[in-house]
Amino acid sequence: MKRIVSLIAVGLLALPSLALADDAPLSEFAYILNTFSFLVGGMLVFWMAAGFAMLESGLVRSKNVATICLKNISLFGIAGILFYLMGYNLMYAGVDGGFIGSFGIWGADDAAALAGDYSAGYAAGSDWFFQMVFCGAACSVVSGCVAERIKLWSFLAFCVFLTGIIYPIQGSWVWGGGWLSEMGFSDYAGSTLVHSVGGWAALTGAIILGARKGKYGKGGKINPIPGSNIPLATLGTFILWIGWLGFNGASALSLGSAGAAIEQSNVYINTMLAPCGGMIAAMIMVQVLYKKVDVTMALNGALAGLVSITAGPAAPSPGAAILIGAVGGVLVVLAVPFFDKLKIDDVVGALSVHLVCGIWGTLVVPVTNDETSFMTQLIGVAAIGAFVVVTSTIVWLIVKFTIGLRVSEEEEYKGCDVTEIGMEAYPYFQGRNIS
Amino acid sequence: MKRIVSLIAVGLLALPSLALADDAPLSEFAYILNTFSFLVGGMLVFWMAAGFAMLESGLVRSKNVATICLKNISLFGIAGILFYLMGYNLMYAGVDGGFIGSFGIWGADDAAALAGDYSAGYAAGSDWFFQMVFCGAACSVVSGCVAERIKLWSFLAFCVFLTGIIYPIQGSWVWGGGWLSEMGFSDYAGSTLVHSVGGWAALTGAIILGARKGKYGKGGKINPIPGSNIPLATLGTFILWIGWLGFNGASALSLGSAGAAIEQSNVYINTMLAPCGGMIAAMIMVQVLYKKVDVTMALNGALAGLVSITAGPAAPSPGAAILIGAVGGVLVVLAVPFFDKLKIDDVVGALSVHLVCGIWGTLVVPVTNDETSFMTQLIGVAAIGAFVVVTSTIVWLIVKFTIGLRVSEEEEYKGCDVTEIGMEAYPYFQGRNIS
Amino acid sequence: MKRIVSLIAVGLLALPSLALADDAPLSEFAYILNTFSFLVGGMLVFWMAAGFAMLESGLVRSKNVATICLKNISLFGIAGILFYLMGYNLMYAGVDGGFIGSFGIWGADDAAALAGDYSAGYAAGSDWFFQMVFCGAACSVVSGCVAERIKLWSFLAFCVFLTGIIYPIQGSWVWGGGWLSEMGFSDYAGSTLVHSVGGWAALTGAIILGARKGKYGKGGKINPIPGSNIPLATLGTFILWIGWLGFNGASALSLGSAGAAIEQSNVYINTMLAPCGGMIAAMIMVQVLYKKVDVTMALNGALAGLVSITAGPAAPSPGAAILIGAVGGVLVVLAVPFFDKLKIDDVVGALSVHLVCGIWGTLVVPVTNDETSFMTQLIGVAAIGAFVVVTSTIVWLIVKFTIGLRVSEEEEYKGCDVTEIGMEAYPYFQGRNIS
Repeated sequence: MKRIVSLIAVGLLALPSLALADDAPLSEFAYILNTFSFLVGGMLVFWMAAGFAMLESGLVRSKNVATICLKNISLFGIAGILFYLMGYNLMYAGVDGGFIGSFGIWGADDAAALAGDYSAGYAAGSDWFFQMVFCGAACSVVSGCVAERIKLWSFLAFCVFLTGIIYPIQGSWVWGGGWLSEMGFSDYAGSTLVHSVGGWAALTGAIILGARKGKYGKGGKINPIPGSNIPLATLGTFILWIGWLGFNGASALSLGSAGAAIEQSNVYINTMLAPCGGMIAAMIMVQVLYKKVDVTMALNGALAGLVSITAGPAAPSPGAAILIGAVGGVLVVLAVPFFDKLKIDDVVGALSVHLVCGIWGTLVVPVTNDETSFMTQLIGVAAIGAFVVVTSTIVWLIVKFTIGLRVSEEEEYKGCDVTEIGMEAYPYFQGRNIS
Repeated sequence: MKRIVSLIAVGLLALPSLALADDAPLSEFAYILNTFSFLVGGMLVFWMAAGFAMLESGLVRSKNVATICLKNISLFGIAGILFYLMGYNLMYAGVDGGFIGSFGIWGADDAAALAGDYSAGYAAGSDWFFQMVFCGAACSVVSGCVAERIKLWSFLAFCVFLTGIIYPIQGSWVWGGGWLSEMGFSDYAGSTLVHSVGGWAALTGAIILGARKGKYGKGGKINPIPGSNIPLATLGTFILWIGWLGFNGASALSLGSAGAAIEQSNVYINTMLAPCGGMIAAMIMVQVLYKKVDVTMALNGALAGLVSITAGPAAPSPGAAILIGAVGGVLVVLAVPFFDKLKIDDVVGALSVHLVCGIWGTLVVPVTNDETSFMTQLIGVAAIGAFVVVTSTIVWLIVKFTIGLRVSEEEEYKGCDVTEIGMEAYPYFQGRNIS
Repeated sequence: MKRIVSLIAVGLLALPSLALADDAPLSEFAYILNTFSFLVGGMLVFWMAAGFAMLESGLVRSKNVATICLKNISLFGIAGILFYLMGYNLMYAGVDGGFIGSFGIWGADDAAALAGDYSAGYAAGSDWFFQMVFCGAACSVVSGCVAERIKLWSFLAFCVFLTGIIYPIQGSWVWGGGWLSEMGFSDYAGSTLVHSVGGWAALTGAIILGARKGKYGKGGKINPIPGSNIPLATLGTFILWIGWLGFNGASALSLGSAGAAIEQSNVYINTMLAPCGGMIAAMIMVQVLYKKVDVTMALNGALAGLVSITAGPAAPSPGAAILIGAVGGVLVVLAVPFFDKLKIDDVVGALSVHLVCGIWGTLVVPVTNDETSFMTQLIGVAAIGAFVVVTSTIVWLIVKFTIGLRVSEEEEYKGCDVTEIGMEAYPYFQGRNIS
């Protein structure tokens, strides 16, 4: 209590009252619960950034680990600032069925709620927080795919455009109340809006960058380049899985009624079971195809299940969620060699997981949700895909022809850690020189 | 708000209302809070799976790290699917004082709550989620003990039986309302039902598998086999500790009244302090006995404190919790050499932590909880122990004589990572060949 | 439900009721929400201990990693027990505008709430839990600074005094309702009370210990000693950042009203954005100064932003938070070489982050909070700084002249892992001998 007394003494602006009057309106409690759901859920989504950092640290070679760490944490610095300066308003302010919001810095307005009108439903800041971490997540998808050869500042320059312009504009079409939402396109937590957006941006980047030296040999030979730290990759997958409970769960956007609590519970279950299906399916498939269970394929199978259920985690039964996830797991096992055949060098499998399963998850929504149509889902996938491919290609090319995109061949050989940031990830461990 | 508008547009099944009517019944809020407690608590328990993965990754040799990662994440895939297909109903459906529930796939029924009757207390899905992650935790206990020599698919086959049959049946005896609960047996969050169940299954597995090559030399010599990555083991312990706050805390099964909030607070405190006692006691004891503080013994001391308090974390005073944990820490320091003397090779100390302290924690409950009796607690420990020893022995032997249990001597020498899953955990670090 | 039935059967002391009567007073819900906010927030703060452990594991040499892990987890064992035995009461019991609370073991008293009077605002245990993890965090700050040369038990002996006496007494001056709070000194979540307290204690320790061998060469030469594991340091930073959301957020000390929910939302935003500013500012600055982006400086920039906003995270606009954090990031880049010039060997940059930015964050509060004054803030910083410098110097010297503080030169050369705790952190990886 004393700590509160001292806070009262110094007169904080928005002083919290400890206890409500017994005649307070019930809607205030719904307001609190909705807000808290955003804060807890958003915290879990931010946790996913650490998951991406560990997953990618584990899957790149040891000579590029410090660099991928730096990219993964600094992209969030950029996402936070850009989403504040312009992203949020571009995505949510005055879209009104259109194609874009308005330019401007975001600002909270909770005056109504402070005056006793709780119809806004939740604190403005909690909504900004929750939406911002989604923006950062889209950016995290890109970093792994283009790793081990892109320059640090060039990558971060791309992130400025992705988080400040590309992500918010396409987001406005659906979650901002734009034209796609009016058509009835449905993407509960972002199979398309977050994951395949990151995937499309990564795809164009990987193509424009080209493959890592030595990845594709003569005569179509594909040289596997193993990751440097499997427990970190496993930890990253666990973190992503756990964070995804908040990613999908709090996307119910409410906790202020029994119906909302039931919906969040169903979302949690499906977000738990779809990756179970994806992982086990991927494991069985690689065992059958290759006679051994590649651990990274199991991890990507779990992530595939997660992406697959994200467009519609509330409606399916648990059994349907397992199946939706399992198909995602199978798709990943097929997609990884497919991209390799096309010589698109995706270091961590981000395209197979986030792009392919992001599309799959969005298109399968109508199977369990009668209010959606396959055609509308397809239009949404195609429209957002086309928009992101075009805009991200433009940005990648601008960066390429201004500050340059790719490190030199010698730098790539030595590793970005030494040449780009002057610091090894594991300086005390003698390294073997594999590829 | 717009994101919600679009959700309404596509007509989700269980549409959450943002704000409650001011004449909504108060029981609805209790329903929401109980549900949210399960979701947050269950998320923390799932987080423990990552803790086990890191702890075990840190404590096995580097040549078996990728395999233990794969086992720890894939066992959860199995636990999720099996607990859905049969585990939950075997444990909770129609036990009625008996020995087993019913066979059948789990399904949520929240119709009453959606119609305004909140007497169920919480969303069915949140309960399933919370119970399922407990089932997975029991399975995680096993993987560390039998590591470095068991075949991947053989281990996973065992997990199918453990999570689908063994765990649920014994769980039905207590938490399902079966015969032991009618006798008055008390196990708040699972010192016996989760931890010693995992421990008994691990014990039979370790005996049937036999020790790792080179662990026990001639003339009773015990060769220490150090773990490969102490910071990961430390991280795993921290994760387990934090996850345990949800494991024990949300086992109050309610947050919908001041009494429940007070109980959860007391559980949090004791779950915080018992491992403090266990860790410090273990550290002092190894310092006195061996003149140095083995860091893995400190970690196991903390875990010992956690297991010890789990059977009754609500009733003891904080001081009593410290003492209960401290005894657990002492027991671990004694138990590790004891199992070695018996030549039962427990790679991570799981038997000392989960089995020994699981029994201790269950038997000490009557000291701080007058409504329980030592005799009943002993009967519960013995009955569940006997059941798990018999059933898990049968399953281990079936697996052994069908697909085989143990890798070949050459595979064990090379390490399971290369031979079983074809991928090293740390391919770029030159390794020393210790044992 | 069955699990609850069985709990009722065994008659737990504080039996939680599942659902409230519909005529329950609304203040009970506020009580529950305030309590739950402390539990979730405290869990996140405890998570920061794992963050410190990983950050410091990543930034020390591989020969001292197991030791720093052990210190980081065992200091929490000490903090828990000491804060229970004396710390809490010294800090909060009967301070009444004075300089110290009372001696005595802490005990919860929730009788009023259990009888239907919710004016206490929250469960006593949830408050103890939340305050205790803060005490532990102050201690965590110290361990990194004095790493690689201090004896294990000597460090832990210092922690006994820091968590049992020094931290609680200065804490009583502000959060306990003592003289500084009566003056109007404002420190929302502990830029001064936690971070600079840890910083001052670390400063005196680093001076009394002296620098690591080889750190400072002849003619003022400063030899960089790289950390051993950058992904772990990155993970630690992410964990700290995420934990800080609870550290600052739940320091609103309430969630039981819309105003409190709005305040927590604003705190979350600023706790998200200040480190964005700090990290990006530090990265740009090191790029300009040194032509490369040192990843550890980016991490410390993020942490600098977090410490800087902690004294006043509720009042600033998001833009102001970014600026406050950015100045923190710049300060860190300047402070690291400054301390090196003074030959104060701070292994992980704890002084630059926690002490320098703790002061900065406290002094900048009046800029965005009209109810505070620069002069009062300065008095608080100076008074607490002087107290901690004097008391911690005395304790360090007592430890030095009794059990000794520093390992021998040979032990330091071999590494504390082998000599102090007899266990290597990475025994299977061949190490290079750098410094």
